[in-house]
Amino acid sequence: MNFLERTTKSERIFEGQIINLRVDIVKLPNGNISTREVVEHPGGVGIIPITDEQEVIMVRQFRKPLETVTLEIPAGKLSYGEDPYVCGVRELEEETGYKAKRVESLGSIYTSPGFANEILHLYMATDLYKGVFNPDEDEFVETEVITLEKLVEMIMQGEVQDAKSIIAILRVWQMIKN
Amino acid sequence: MNFLERTTKSERIFEGQIINLRVDIVKLPNGNISTREVVEHPGGVGIIPITDEQEVIMVRQFRKPLETVTLEIPAGKLSYGEDPYVCGVRELEEETGYKAKRVESLGSIYTSPGFANEILHLYMATDLYKGVFNPDEDEFVETEVITLEKLVEMIMQGEVQDAKSIIAILRVWQMIKN
Repeated sequence: MNFLERTTKSERIFEGQIINLRVDIVKLPNGNISTREVVEHPGGVGIIPITDEQEVIMVRQFRKPLETVTLEIPAGKLSYGEDPYVCGVRELEEETGYKAKRVESLGSIYTSPGFANEILHLYMATDLYKGVFNPDEDEFVETEVITLEKLVEMIMQGEVQDAKSIIAILRVWQMIKN
Repeated sequence: MNFLERTTKSERIFEGQIINLRVDIVKLPNGNISTREVVEHPGGVGIIPITDEQEVIMVRQFRKPLETVTLEIPAGKLSYGEDPYVCGVRELEEETGYKAKRVESLGSIYTSPGFANEILHLYMATDLYKGVFNPDEDEFVETEVITLEKLVEMIMQGEVQDAKSIIAILRVWQMIKN
């Protein structure tokens, strides 16, 4: 089947500090005209730090869109042109105070392919050692160390709801169990 | 720690058919002022249909934000006030042509808590039987049946990248293996 939606017009609605918004007019495969609301995001990184005791250093922070504090793996958005690996290593130290001797890729995910182009690059960090806890001045985060096994249980109970964190945890669990 | 970001002003930038965009001015816990770009989304549903042979009915479709065809579980966005379960059952039949005698919750996830309030309710559908394949007139989808085991492998290889689909697949796999 031909799926392509050809853009015939594109209107820039907003350019922000983190996201942009545009509305595309598209021609569908059946010839009909439709609109697509597209959020442009620079992409980001999530990094799951695992201690030698199979514990994960998780992060608590306030998320304005949800008006609540969430439990997530350390993460951050990419600066323009920045290497995801470099970004992941930096965010790990800033948000948890740890560095890692070993950082492996867990692949990349699309968080909301229906309306956003956000891609997140996931990493696993092991062989941790102390660095400098140094969040941005306006970044308020608190770490919490939880065993991998407990986190899998929390996911199954609905107590971890952040998509990238669930994926990183279940992927590592899957690797360990095989 | 007090994490709260109190909104002191909120500007509506855009109201669309699927998403809205607003920019909030917030007072941070340290008293500093910052802005938050927030995408409002009605929320949605993802439903993983599993045959008696432990195969999954996946869906291929074009995703404008990514300019590519993705492999995902059946999904759809909620209409205002719609029950997620009802939405899931409807999307399942529309996109795959199957109904299910058994539909169980796999919990809810936040896809992009940094900039969007989107919540997705995940379900597992089993005991499938033929209904009516009936996508919306302007919806172009193709189904593909893949074993659960193969999908787990594809996730580990980076061949399935949609967050909700990865979570549904790994959660079901985790349930089966326990």
